[in-house]
Amino acid sequence: MKIIVTGGGGFLGSRVIQALLDGKDAGTGAVEFDQVVSLDLAECPVADSRVASVKGSIGDAELLHEIVTEDTVGIFHLAAVLSGGSEDDFDLAMNVNVDGTRALLEAARGIRNTPRFVFTSSLAVFGGEMPDSVPENMATQPESTYGMVKSIGELLVNEYTRKGFIDGRICRLPTISVRPGKPNSAASSFASSIIREPMNGMKSVCPVPVDTKLWLSSPNAAVTNLVHAFEIDGENIGGWRVLNVPGLSVTAGEMLESLTRVAGQSARDLVGIDYDAKIDSIVGSWPGAFDVERTRSLGFVSDTDFDQVVQQYRDDFIAG
Amino acid sequence: MKIIVTGGGGFLGSRVIQALLDGKDAGTGAVEFDQVVSLDLAECPVADSRVASVKGSIGDAELLHEIVTEDTVGIFHLAAVLSGGSEDDFDLAMNVNVDGTRALLEAARGIRNTPRFVFTSSLAVFGGEMPDSVPENMATQPESTYGMVKSIGELLVNEYTRKGFIDGRICRLPTISVRPGKPNSAASSFASSIIREPMNGMKSVCPVPVDTKLWLSSPNAAVTNLVHAFEIDGENIGGWRVLNVPGLSVTAGEMLESLTRVAGQSARDLVGIDYDAKIDSIVGSWPGAFDVERTRSLGFVSDTDFDQVVQQYRDDFIAG
Repeated sequence: MKIIVTGGGGFLGSRVIQALLDGKDAGTGAVEFDQVVSLDLAECPVADSRVASVKGSIGDAELLHEIVTEDTVGIFHLAAVLSGGSEDDFDLAMNVNVDGTRALLEAARGIRNTPRFVFTSSLAVFGGEMPDSVPENMATQPESTYGMVKSIGELLVNEYTRKGFIDGRICRLPTISVRPGKPNSAASSFASSIIREPMNGMKSVCPVPVDTKLWLSSPNAAVTNLVHAFEIDGENIGGWRVLNVPGLSVTAGEMLESLTRVAGQSARDLVGIDYDAKIDSIVGSWPGAFDVERTRSLGFVSDTDFDQVVQQYRDDFIAG
Repeated sequence: MKIIVTGGGGFLGSRVIQALLDGKDAGTGAVEFDQVVSLDLAECPVADSRVASVKGSIGDAELLHEIVTEDTVGIFHLAAVLSGGSEDDFDLAMNVNVDGTRALLEAARGIRNTPRFVFTSSLAVFGGEMPDSVPENMATQPESTYGMVKSIGELLVNEYTRKGFIDGRICRLPTISVRPGKPNSAASSFASSIIREPMNGMKSVCPVPVDTKLWLSSPNAAVTNLVHAFEIDGENIGGWRVLNVPGLSVTAGEMLESLTRVAGQSARDLVGIDYDAKIDSIVGSWPGAFDVERTRSLGFVSDTDFDQVVQQYRDDFIAG
């Protein structure tokens, strides 16, 4: 029995794979499997004999059909062109995020076990006038190519589920902060950089007004929630499979205050404010808070506060 | 200068073409053109030297590129696999309604004049719990394949507009009643049949409970609104191009009462009630009323009452 993780070479994907293996070893996993296949342009960094790393693109339909075999019980579809990259290259975003998702759904359609299919969506599906807290029945009116392609992905995964082709679970993830490593092509990349860089003694800039509200999740909470989305009973979710994953509603200024409290004024002083209209126009169209009563009642979790998120980054990624 | 109408061989499409020509002849049209091209599997019935009828499929990308030439100033995209047909054939619905729409958008992308692009969507994009009246920011949670593909079309037309590739206008049309002619593959086909058949002396059945609320538009109001959507200034619509076109909120029972008032008890007696769970599950998931304050303020119109709609059918289509 096989679980496939697209984007398994990436930060979130590799941690999902590790969490699945840990759950299996601890005997706590809800879905039986004996192999995990990572599909990614990059090698999967998880060193475990149960993990097969396939290097390739989600846009390669033939490869998808080879990988998604009859013994597939689950798919995590995390691979995507991110928000900044999608805004810069419309056609690439359509090819990878729409056609790739569709090809993966087609490969999964008709598999005996009706695989559970976890799809990561984004708060970028929203735009226009935003209420203080986004309700469950809020229209998706994306103001970015990334939001549009993710919105289409939501509709596809939902409809493939309604038709009984797959058993979908759509996670609208908050912005992940603090990601380790380097900036990526997401417009929200700064939400990690303004904490990560100063904690590593490097300068960073905040490109949005400090009162910009962000909806954030630590990597640990995000991974826990993705695995939870995979493991819960689909019938408990109901007909509409979109899940507003819980997060923390924090302004950019409050993030910097957490930085000061955890890492000191010298770290805070490394962060300048340098307004970037392009980033602000994307990130500023995203909502800063969600009504998560339903997803909390389904067992999804969030971080306690942003100080704790900064401490998590320090403890996990900063040596000594 | 050319206007293209996909589905120009159909009932609504051919009437849109006639209305465009009438507007031109009266000198009231807002967009200059000298030719209309109908693209449809069927021949366009409008007999006018300014109309070219091209028989072909919206799924034929090569044909689309031939037709959408540099002098294209407008496109009405009405061709689609309807709701019943989409529910029966998922792949056909994806190919025609998603891939076809996308191919047409790609053909229009890059045309010098940034063509106005009127796309007909549907109240089938909605599902789940419905408020008494659907607000502008209501989530699209379709419970049918047709609703899903139309929802994807909305996102595409909107994003192509945001990117400046086209100048899109998305009309969420009410259910059209009374259509002349024969039943079609739309799940809502009965909304015409229960009036049309008895007025022509034939039996008909109502497949949904009589208290089912429907959101209806006469053909005349729908055509007027489609042409209006084409002619208004895009900037007046704003960034989000979806328009909830005004309609009448009427129950199936009230429709039958109008039938009695206009055509008499003998006509009413020709309509039986024969519950059809499949049709009810599709049509029952659609909303029965919309908040149309914004579209009314943009100049969109609706019928006065359903009696007048039945009279319109009688006057236009029943001889003598």
